[in-house]
Amino acid sequence: MQRLRRLLKPNPETLHHLLVNYKWLWSIINSVTFLSDSLMTFVYLLRSNAVDSPPLYTSAHEYITLEASYNLSYYARGLPAVPTDCPTPMGIKGKRVLPDPKIVVERLFKRTVFKPEPMHSSLLLAYFAQHFIHQFFKTDHQKGPGFQWGGHGVDVSHVYGKNKHVENLLRSFQDGKLKTQVLNNEEYPPYQADVPGVPMTWMGQVADNNKFALGHQFFGMMPGLFLYATIWMREHNRVCDELRRVHPEWDDERLFQTGKLIIQGETIKIVIEDYVQHLSNYHFLVTFKPELLHTEVFQYQNRIAAEFDHMYRWHPLMPDEFNISGVVYPIMEFIFKSDLVVKYGTKVFTDSLSRQIAGQMTARNHGFLTQSVALDTIENGRKLRFQPYNNYRKNLDFPHTKFSELTDDPEVAATLEELYGDIDGVEFYAGLLSEKRRENNMFGALVIEMGGPFSVKGLMSTPICSPRYWKPSTFGGDVGFNIVKTASLEKLFCKNIPGDECPLISFVVPPENIPSSEKCENCKNDEL
Amino acid sequence: MQRLRRLLKPNPETLHHLLVNYKWLWSIINSVTFLSDSLMTFVYLLRSNAVDSPPLYTSAHEYITLEASYNLSYYARGLPAVPTDCPTPMGIKGKRVLPDPKIVVERLFKRTVFKPEPMHSSLLLAYFAQHFIHQFFKTDHQKGPGFQWGGHGVDVSHVYGKNKHVENLLRSFQDGKLKTQVLNNEEYPPYQADVPGVPMTWMGQVADNNKFALGHQFFGMMPGLFLYATIWMREHNRVCDELRRVHPEWDDERLFQTGKLIIQGETIKIVIEDYVQHLSNYHFLVTFKPELLHTEVFQYQNRIAAEFDHMYRWHPLMPDEFNISGVVYPIMEFIFKSDLVVKYGTKVFTDSLSRQIAGQMTARNHGFLTQSVALDTIENGRKLRFQPYNNYRKNLDFPHTKFSELTDDPEVAATLEELYGDIDGVEFYAGLLSEKRRENNMFGALVIEMGGPFSVKGLMSTPICSPRYWKPSTFGGDVGFNIVKTASLEKLFCKNIPGDECPLISFVVPPENIPSSEKCENCKNDEL
Repeated sequence: MQRLRRLLKPNPETLHHLLVNYKWLWSIINSVTFLSDSLMTFVYLLRSNAVDSPPLYTSAHEYITLEASYNLSYYARGLPAVPTDCPTPMGIKGKRVLPDPKIVVERLFKRTVFKPEPMHSSLLLAYFAQHFIHQFFKTDHQKGPGFQWGGHGVDVSHVYGKNKHVENLLRSFQDGKLKTQVLNNEEYPPYQADVPGVPMTWMGQVADNNKFALGHQFFGMMPGLFLYATIWMREHNRVCDELRRVHPEWDDERLFQTGKLIIQGETIKIVIEDYVQHLSNYHFLVTFKPELLHTEVFQYQNRIAAEFDHMYRWHPLMPDEFNISGVVYPIMEFIFKSDLVVKYGTKVFTDSLSRQIAGQMTARNHGFLTQSVALDTIENGRKLRFQPYNNYRKNLDFPHTKFSELTDDPEVAATLEELYGDIDGVEFYAGLLSEKRRENNMFGALVIEMGGPFSVKGLMSTPICSPRYWKPSTFGGDVGFNIVKTASLEKLFCKNIPGDECPLISFVVPPENIPSSEKCENCKNDEL
Repeated sequence: MQRLRRLLKPNPETLHHLLVNYKWLWSIINSVTFLSDSLMTFVYLLRSNAVDSPPLYTSAHEYITLEASYNLSYYARGLPAVPTDCPTPMGIKGKRVLPDPKIVVERLFKRTVFKPEPMHSSLLLAYFAQHFIHQFFKTDHQKGPGFQWGGHGVDVSHVYGKNKHVENLLRSFQDGKLKTQVLNNEEYPPYQADVPGVPMTWMGQVADNNKFALGHQFFGMMPGLFLYATIWMREHNRVCDELRRVHPEWDDERLFQTGKLIIQGETIKIVIEDYVQHLSNYHFLVTFKPELLHTEVFQYQNRIAAEFDHMYRWHPLMPDEFNISGVVYPIMEFIFKSDLVVKYGTKVFTDSLSRQIAGQMTARNHGFLTQSVALDTIENGRKLRFQPYNNYRKNLDFPHTKFSELTDDPEVAATLEELYGDIDGVEFYAGLLSEKRRENNMFGALVIEMGGPFSVKGLMSTPICSPRYWKPSTFGGDVGFNIVKTASLEKLFCKNIPGDECPLISFVVPPENIPSSEKCENCKNDEL
């Protein structure tokens, strides 16, 4: 059976080509439930079977140990580390001494000119990604780059805090709701000063009116993160009101706990049907249907891999300046300025993020503020003894044989060859960032082919997707279950932004907001 | 499909009757691999499907929450707690005020006369149980009876210590081995004084030569536990020697980690094929074959339930005195006397434990030393708002309708009725202990029907059983894999006890060692 599946497993590039072309074919498949459900089940399993569950490796051992399963303080590993007694840092190929990480950043990562995201993805998308992934990418820097302190999955800890203590601080203990305050006639999270004990990370001087108490300690760093934190907080409280309407006898605790279950469900629904749909750019409509896996061999557990963390460092998406309602803020006047959201209001802020194009996830597109993160990524990839970029492709049966295959930019190809000598000697993150863009897609192929499995596995393996959770009563009955099953990005914002009219809520910047210099061929909006 | 399975699900009593009778039939089934494998797969699934995985409930909420899945500090719950607003402590039935726990202990649990285990189980069995289960029953008394501090499963933490720090203290860092010392020409764990920092629990005055550093902090309490700790330590070191023979190039770390994987495998093999086989007393040979589950819908994760912990409080198995090679030690001269094992040697000690009969797990058979534990169990069962005993039977489709069904001892039945009033008002542990013995079995039916699922689920869901672990290379190649696949209780002791001849190593006391007063009808030895 497994051999048969292996035989039927299509080549990644063929499958991708199929999925981003032949729109007429997909519109048929999408409209026939039997076909689309079968294909969706296939996608769930194809992706999640590529992930070891339970995990086999950590960064501490290049062979199987019980620690990999039991010691949650480790990140898992997609591929085991290069053994320490290998002839080169990449194993057997490549240079004996890797290039100075600073040189790698300087020559491969540093933004020379802002490269817009060719599918015209908006900043609303970029911040969605950042807000979502920080709930599970939590490196424990004190222990080292192979360690983490999170819950290894989509546990909504970015909304409710990293543990029960913080959760309790954020709760109002009234009607299940989270604490809020009203500023400029809108509901926002409380100031940190009003909720002592909620850990938040600040850098440099940050004014008290920019210091909010949020579910994740980094979310004060970017107004876009603060916007999402605000919207999800409002959504939780809105859901509690809905639950209270149908269950007037419920106490605060039950409203809170059930609201949290609904928020996890909504998160996954939106991530799959809005966010993953956008990232994949498939004509096939990807759907969130946990029931499709209930009769399949599938593990409802998840572990975050170190490679997934590195792969998801999409800092090139950040522009150097932000246009909020016509006012341009250089990034240094934007970070740690949550009060900009309060000043403009969530409606205008959402609209502005929907109308500004993000940067392309590619070589030479790291803005000056994030180059230090790229440096750190290279250095940590070496400490973690990541296998070379091409081994991750080999593992998925589509290796490169030469630099000109990796990138279609001859200058980047030449730089890679100069820095690494051999196509099998290229570092993981350097390869990922340099990869040529895939047909009709935001990313190179490996981001999709590695990220897909880790994402699908993480999303579908949450407890709520398991057979005994996935039923109306878990979510407070049909009312709650329907909130989950009909959630969308648009509803999430629309229902939580005051006023009669919704702003533009879009992961794609509309054509009228794209400067002619940033227009591109083969973009989402130009497609058939 | 699920409905079909439900229909095919046999009545627990019918199935049990089949399994403990018709020896001729079973000898045929056992000898035909196809039949026995199919039936074993059925048993694995029947048992493990009875356990919620991921778990749905903790003692903190009687409805589904994300905490049940994510907050590992809770024990899970088999059935949710009785809601606090119910009319009686047991829900709707039974008395409004439960009897004083001291009265329950006095009238239902207190040993009047030692009742021998009717299947003639030995003390070697009793200590096997105690040694094995303490790795996962770890109540966090500071937080309360609903909380625990363990790893929720068969993680061999009782051999290697509760965390990496203790594990490191116990390791010699030479050839993968654990630290040892030689006493009376045998290898034993080191004294606690020689390994500062290993946490051990002592009560009263304990001499330094009784204070050993062991994997579990309670294992200094009983010489039988110390015997098992010693044997498993020797086995780990023996396995490391075997591994080093085939992998002379391996370093200490790899030998240790791989040895630990083998020890986990051996543990499960012995628990299923020796221990569970004995407890079940089935004529069907139960087997440890993880590969049978690799194509089935099965979750490789486990959570210890509070009811499983209470159900496994088998203190009646402890006698009041211990006969070691003809010398009789009252229990107060036996506890915290690990040096008795050293004095007599592991061979004589093992032999003696194999020849002494354990107590019966039944009403009025708690020795004076363990009555306080029974009291604690009743009190905590109330704090945890356990549903009544009969609800657990209802949940398995075989409820009792009257007290005379629960027990065949009219006096116990009358006491239960007096204390609880209603068959649906009997407390969980009181019911479990009072239950009549099942046909050809050590226990009442509910212990088997509840314990079976929790046990099978816990054993088969360990990471080593999962498809990507269960292969020779995980265990250092065929040599290690074969050690796991051929492990037995007899080998475990025989290979680790010095001398040419093995002692008696048996979970059943041989007929010649059973005092005539303790002979019983329908015992294992008397069977056809």
